[in-house]
Amino acid sequence: MKNIKIAYIGGGSKQWARVFMNDLALCSDLTGEIGLFDIDKEAAVRNQQIGNNINKQPETVSRWNYVVYDSLKEILCGADFVVISILPGTFEDMRVDVHYPEKYNIYQSVGDTAGPGGVSRALRTVPFYEEFAAAIEKYCPDAWVINFTNPMSICTKTLNDVFPSVKAFGCCHEVFHTQDFLCDILEEFTGIKAKRKEIYTEVAGINHFTWISSAKYKDIEIFDFMDDYIAKHFEEGHYEHGPADSYKTDTFAYANRVKMDMYKRYGVLGAAGDRHLAEFMNNKWYLASPSQVDSWKFALTTVDFRIKQMNERIEESKKLASGEIRPEVKKSDEEAVELMRSVLGLTTTISNVNLPNRGQISWLPEGSIVETNAVFSNDRVVPVTTKPLPVAVQSLVRRCSDNIDILYEGIKKRDKKIIFESFVNQPLCSSLTLDEARSLFDEMYEKNLRFFQKNN
Amino acid sequence: MKNIKIAYIGGGSKQWARVFMNDLALCSDLTGEIGLFDIDKEAAVRNQQIGNNINKQPETVSRWNYVVYDSLKEILCGADFVVISILPGTFEDMRVDVHYPEKYNIYQSVGDTAGPGGVSRALRTVPFYEEFAAAIEKYCPDAWVINFTNPMSICTKTLNDVFPSVKAFGCCHEVFHTQDFLCDILEEFTGIKAKRKEIYTEVAGINHFTWISSAKYKDIEIFDFMDDYIAKHFEEGHYEHGPADSYKTDTFAYANRVKMDMYKRYGVLGAAGDRHLAEFMNNKWYLASPSQVDSWKFALTTVDFRIKQMNERIEESKKLASGEIRPEVKKSDEEAVELMRSVLGLTTTISNVNLPNRGQISWLPEGSIVETNAVFSNDRVVPVTTKPLPVAVQSLVRRCSDNIDILYEGIKKRDKKIIFESFVNQPLCSSLTLDEARSLFDEMYEKNLRFFQKNN
Amino acid sequence: MKNIKIAYIGGGSKQWARVFMNDLALCSDLTGEIGLFDIDKEAAVRNQQIGNNINKQPETVSRWNYVVYDSLKEILCGADFVVISILPGTFEDMRVDVHYPEKYNIYQSVGDTAGPGGVSRALRTVPFYEEFAAAIEKYCPDAWVINFTNPMSICTKTLNDVFPSVKAFGCCHEVFHTQDFLCDILEEFTGIKAKRKEIYTEVAGINHFTWISSAKYKDIEIFDFMDDYIAKHFEEGHYEHGPADSYKTDTFAYANRVKMDMYKRYGVLGAAGDRHLAEFMNNKWYLASPSQVDSWKFALTTVDFRIKQMNERIEESKKLASGEIRPEVKKSDEEAVELMRSVLGLTTTISNVNLPNRGQISWLPEGSIVETNAVFSNDRVVPVTTKPLPVAVQSLVRRCSDNIDILYEGIKKRDKKIIFESFVNQPLCSSLTLDEARSLFDEMYEKNLRFFQKNN
Amino acid sequence: MKNIKIAYIGGGSKQWARVFMNDLALCSDLTGEIGLFDIDKEAAVRNQQIGNNINKQPETVSRWNYVVYDSLKEILCGADFVVISILPGTFEDMRVDVHYPEKYNIYQSVGDTAGPGGVSRALRTVPFYEEFAAAIEKYCPDAWVINFTNPMSICTKTLNDVFPSVKAFGCCHEVFHTQDFLCDILEEFTGIKAKRKEIYTEVAGINHFTWISSAKYKDIEIFDFMDDYIAKHFEEGHYEHGPADSYKTDTFAYANRVKMDMYKRYGVLGAAGDRHLAEFMNNKWYLASPSQVDSWKFALTTVDFRIKQMNERIEESKKLASGEIRPEVKKSDEEAVELMRSVLGLTTTISNVNLPNRGQISWLPEGSIVETNAVFSNDRVVPVTTKPLPVAVQSLVRRCSDNIDILYEGIKKRDKKIIFESFVNQPLCSSLTLDEARSLFDEMYEKNLRFFQKNN
Repeated sequence: MKNIKIAYIGGGSKQWARVFMNDLALCSDLTGEIGLFDIDKEAAVRNQQIGNNINKQPETVSRWNYVVYDSLKEILCGADFVVISILPGTFEDMRVDVHYPEKYNIYQSVGDTAGPGGVSRALRTVPFYEEFAAAIEKYCPDAWVINFTNPMSICTKTLNDVFPSVKAFGCCHEVFHTQDFLCDILEEFTGIKAKRKEIYTEVAGINHFTWISSAKYKDIEIFDFMDDYIAKHFEEGHYEHGPADSYKTDTFAYANRVKMDMYKRYGVLGAAGDRHLAEFMNNKWYLASPSQVDSWKFALTTVDFRIKQMNERIEESKKLASGEIRPEVKKSDEEAVELMRSVLGLTTTISNVNLPNRGQISWLPEGSIVETNAVFSNDRVVPVTTKPLPVAVQSLVRRCSDNIDILYEGIKKRDKKIIFESFVNQPLCSSLTLDEARSLFDEMYEKNLRFFQKNN
Repeated sequence: MKNIKIAYIGGGSKQWARVFMNDLALCSDLTGEIGLFDIDKEAAVRNQQIGNNINKQPETVSRWNYVVYDSLKEILCGADFVVISILPGTFEDMRVDVHYPEKYNIYQSVGDTAGPGGVSRALRTVPFYEEFAAAIEKYCPDAWVINFTNPMSICTKTLNDVFPSVKAFGCCHEVFHTQDFLCDILEEFTGIKAKRKEIYTEVAGINHFTWISSAKYKDIEIFDFMDDYIAKHFEEGHYEHGPADSYKTDTFAYANRVKMDMYKRYGVLGAAGDRHLAEFMNNKWYLASPSQVDSWKFALTTVDFRIKQMNERIEESKKLASGEIRPEVKKSDEEAVELMRSVLGLTTTISNVNLPNRGQISWLPEGSIVETNAVFSNDRVVPVTTKPLPVAVQSLVRRCSDNIDILYEGIKKRDKKIIFESFVNQPLCSSLTLDEARSLFDEMYEKNLRFFQKNN
Repeated sequence: MKNIKIAYIGGGSKQWARVFMNDLALCSDLTGEIGLFDIDKEAAVRNQQIGNNINKQPETVSRWNYVVYDSLKEILCGADFVVISILPGTFEDMRVDVHYPEKYNIYQSVGDTAGPGGVSRALRTVPFYEEFAAAIEKYCPDAWVINFTNPMSICTKTLNDVFPSVKAFGCCHEVFHTQDFLCDILEEFTGIKAKRKEIYTEVAGINHFTWISSAKYKDIEIFDFMDDYIAKHFEEGHYEHGPADSYKTDTFAYANRVKMDMYKRYGVLGAAGDRHLAEFMNNKWYLASPSQVDSWKFALTTVDFRIKQMNERIEESKKLASGEIRPEVKKSDEEAVELMRSVLGLTTTISNVNLPNRGQISWLPEGSIVETNAVFSNDRVVPVTTKPLPVAVQSLVRRCSDNIDILYEGIKKRDKKIIFESFVNQPLCSSLTLDEARSLFDEMYEKNLRFFQKNN
Repeated sequence: MKNIKIAYIGGGSKQWARVFMNDLALCSDLTGEIGLFDIDKEAAVRNQQIGNNINKQPETVSRWNYVVYDSLKEILCGADFVVISILPGTFEDMRVDVHYPEKYNIYQSVGDTAGPGGVSRALRTVPFYEEFAAAIEKYCPDAWVINFTNPMSICTKTLNDVFPSVKAFGCCHEVFHTQDFLCDILEEFTGIKAKRKEIYTEVAGINHFTWISSAKYKDIEIFDFMDDYIAKHFEEGHYEHGPADSYKTDTFAYANRVKMDMYKRYGVLGAAGDRHLAEFMNNKWYLASPSQVDSWKFALTTVDFRIKQMNERIEESKKLASGEIRPEVKKSDEEAVELMRSVLGLTTTISNVNLPNRGQISWLPEGSIVETNAVFSNDRVVPVTTKPLPVAVQSLVRRCSDNIDILYEGIKKRDKKIIFESFVNQPLCSSLTLDEARSLFDEMYEKNLRFFQKNN
């Protein structure tokens, strides 16, 4: 068993931390320490207690030493892996991101990546990442850093810009769900029940707006069925994890109608949930109003809902920590542990990942953060080359990638003028007048000012 | 005196032809034949008669032989220069380009380059250019081809794509006007009255959406005065060729308020009239309504106005042709004749020009048509390298350049689906729903179908 | 079991065919037909008989239908895989490649890739590949084509240039041997006995002149031991497949002294046998004379030796065909069958391969044939991106890659002048005067003329 | 008259300074101060005295204030132009560059740019330029810096690397001589007596190894006559500034036979004197022995000759300084003053110049120093884009450009190992064994050590 130290920044996480702890508990060749650091120390302590309870379960294969730390310095010293999954600010701050734009008829299904919400959230997040990157360079320059926080691209960009030789990559499971969707199509046309890892998808784009141009099960091209599939299912839609109308009750569900609509137009498949994809396009296309959203069969996730869900999770956490509920130790569909095993040289994985462009996407600038497949193995993550997407899709992606680069430049320089240019160039802001854009931006900027001025 | 044959396609032109004939009449080292070819042969004959009258004027230095031709083949055989300046279709066709989108609150000040009007006009224009390029390859492959028709970029692209070794470039005087504007600024701050050719401007972008990042008179940087200038003049505006409120009576005038607004945001200067610049940006920014246009102090040129103007010009032409009015032979501010002299090796000129990108703009794809400075001399036109613009500006330009490339691919393949992707990605279409975009597009497409299907 | 048709061009092969047939016989999930086509039909028939005998062996898991064909058309129709492994011309022709240059003190250890021999052999080979590519496009455009013939790069280039959508890649086992060498180093320093497939090597360059810049067993970097290893072993050398002085009796052996010398200078490891590496460098460095070659501890393989070996193999083949000897059916270290299974979607393999550059090597031109790692899976071969090598190594590789591109252009155009420029720019020709180069070239060119003029 | 301060580093120059002072004395729109700084202060003082004598001549149009300075700081403060033309070390040091390699049969006609001599000289020169660049950044960051010192490319690279926003360019008159040669060809075929500035040449490559792919007088392509010209003149040769056999008595003369030989092979024209061109190619091609050099009709310039010439020039300088000889004030064929007037905005010049590659040569890396045409005007020098040269020529140039980049990296890091890789990759070293290369390099390196260790 390989002995490692994992530093988990944002280790008070109410959801993802537990998934990760479970997967590690079931990993037969890794053990060691899981350090937890969180501004909300109480939450970290709860996760420590839950971890200790997981250690006691019979299904547990690997028992870990859970340690709560008070400083970045302490948690990072000696770390082999740094896992970062934070909520930048609070859900009240997120209310700014998601709901302020509604005054201007900009509805956001997620509000954490692109659009005015993505810009607003980045103002809070990047300053934290500047701090993380500097600390990693100082205390554990050789550690692998795995980012899960959104906005993914700009977090990954910050790590690489502040500490250019950082060994960092950003992981996101949205592509996985699209692979599940493809499995459903395969089954419908061939009867074959494949697992998503059996589907090889060509992936190219940026996080939450990456595209699949080919999907093969063995040597069967699933895209060959796509036109027929969409002709049949476009109206009612299809959801890979439940009935097509799940979105009516599950705020995270969607019916893939946005994805199918885009496929009909472009011939390639957006590889993220519809809730994300829609936020990268003109706001009149899919997000003009709650009723339009409903007609495309997905939902707007409110911050009130998130707060309610958080509170339920805190309650559940307390029970898990106290032992009132027994933790269920089972393997998730997430890949983080597999990727860690891979860079440790224990296996080889090919999966999608966010990395600085060094040629994997020829039509995006060097250094922009892109999401493509990469080979994870033996202390390295090597992105594969990709074929060009249709120019119409390149154009959509390039604009959003430029917006991230402009935004990062603006935040790095603490230059409001440059940040505004990213804001007003967001497709979701495409029907604002300049005056409206300015008013909305000023208000959102003001609300994030205390984070944004940090480290400056 | 160098003896040459010039083939003028669109030689029935009511305005530009006369300017050109005058400039040639005053050129002391060129003479020969000016061939005229036009679908409206009557107009070509009138220009022939006007040319003959110019020959008789005392100011005339060089007398030319004006010949009207009936076919591309005849006019092109033996040509040293091919000058193309056509109206693709009629003004009734142009009504589709300019006014149909108004139903969807898309107002266009020109409607011949970008936006729905630019797409619509390209559907009519490209098929003619396919024919011209093939004929040039066949009948005068070594001739220099100078394009003046809009949409400039896609015309130049067609010539180069159909006949890759064509010696073609596209000329546009919009940058000249911005240079005049810069002269006014120079004068205000230094008292120096410079001519536009004394200002060296760094130019990079695409036609009608190209940008100046530095403007020097001798070693004085005019951009150093810009902030002060704009602070003082932004509200009332300034027009380089008349009072700031000329736009109220002159439909082609503008007060440079769009240009100044963009400069305030980006730090670089759009190098075309405001009427053109505004059409490359989200339609809510400057063109959301007639009253918004008015507040930015420019005008919407209607097709009715163009028809009225054309009729007046026809009347004037008839009088000039019959000798009822004496042609006034004087040098214009246009450069076509200077550029012709340059490629003949009689002088050297540095000016802005539209050419396929071969490295002059590092942030646009190879082969896209870009507008930068070039050196004209000795049978060649060599574009100079440019420095990168701010990423926020690159992003605006790149999107519009992509739209041209997508549009050209669509027209070349006669593929409506691809053309729609260019249409819906136009910034002027940015506040349309997909349904609205589809309806408007279908209608405009239908109206141009008879041109579009040509040559196919 | 997946049923496939394999078309083996050069199917009379006396050595490699048998290895391949064995590996296929031991493959539990593939079966079908192995077509054999060879100018030497007798040899193909012998291989068919040997194949039939393999089918009868008890170890055999998969029985194949061996068919001898008389034409490219017949063998290619219906093929799923085309395997090409030919001897272009005869060993008498190869005498020109290898021994003619000796008159000018150019000694070649192999003479089939770079140097005057590589140029000479390409003159014979490319015309065959032009024919193969055209036939594949016509008869089996969707088949996977695997090339084993040298000169590898130019064969792969021909296939891709003549039929741009060909699904072709070139395989070479030289990197494998370097991986074996790295295993030996690992064992010496750590005691770990790893298999070569457990070593992940970063590979970048061109065939027979590709470079490893990092080699990891799990997360152990073998390059960390390299300086010590070389300090200790440089003088006596080391051979991964036998004693260091094997080269004295085995003409294919070498002691890795060239490789170690280059590592000392450049810090990266040439990933081919010393016999190949030496041919890509100035001829005074390692190949100036037989005694210099001896001092670097490798050998010059003569054509006489090759003829002798061939005759022995023919004798052996006859006995295997007649049943006089029982074929020994055992798995080789070659990867062809694994790669075939991978593109059929039955497994995933990461290995080095020769493909047109589409961004995997940023410092070589697009379209040049490069050797890097790629992911083989699900009907695709996707090269991974690589990090830049030291500029001094880039310069060596770039020159040799340019030579291939120049050579291909010359052969394609049947232009002797261009071919000479590739010839005289070969590092092995670096101490020839222009007159000497011209004489040698004329003589070698003349001898290959009958092949070279083929298809023209 | 524009008043400027020129800082002349190496202002004790015995030849070029006087040419420059004359050209300035005849320039009607520039005046001011010419600062002189030289390690050999006596020589600077002599030039001051000569300058004062020039001021007194009747032909003189502009009188300058000549000031001798004792420090870089003083001369640079307030400078508008910095002109650098130094001899790094002494002619005794240059003996190492030029004559040491003769022991290994490497003969050098110049020995100051490429080959072992170029490497050796760079070891002495770069440390001075590191100092100059740092001082310019500190004392006159906005000044234009014009370099005339060889090795040109690496001097220009040092200036740009140490002070990235330096406004520096490197000037060389070798292309001018090739233009004179082209004028002679033009005259022979057409009778037209053109001046070199009337010939427009497309220039691409690196200093002393740049290439002309087209040369036009008006619209006449001189290359159209080249095959006939060479057929007629190849044997006897031709020298643009005297009889073909001038090289027998004038060590700087040549008969263009190398240039013609290369043209016959590559179809493009090397744009430097044969003495320079030959040094960029395999040493067996043109420089294998004094008799080979003689057969190509050029000469080996010895250091003894240079010392003799220097002493004569010192004597002449003394007489000019004392007034014993009257200075002859006449305009040279050099362009430095025209280029200065151009960047001051007083005129526009298009000429060849050495600058970092920013796209002007697509096939060389960004940042390598390349020589192409540029537009000089209004405080800027803008390189033009170039068309690709034949790949065989690209390959020759790229190798030599790589060698400069490797050499610079080695010197910057004071890393002998890297420098050796540039040395051994020099085409002039192409017939050395590794042992010979090592011995020669060690000896030359040692002799320059006191310069090389400077600033480190």
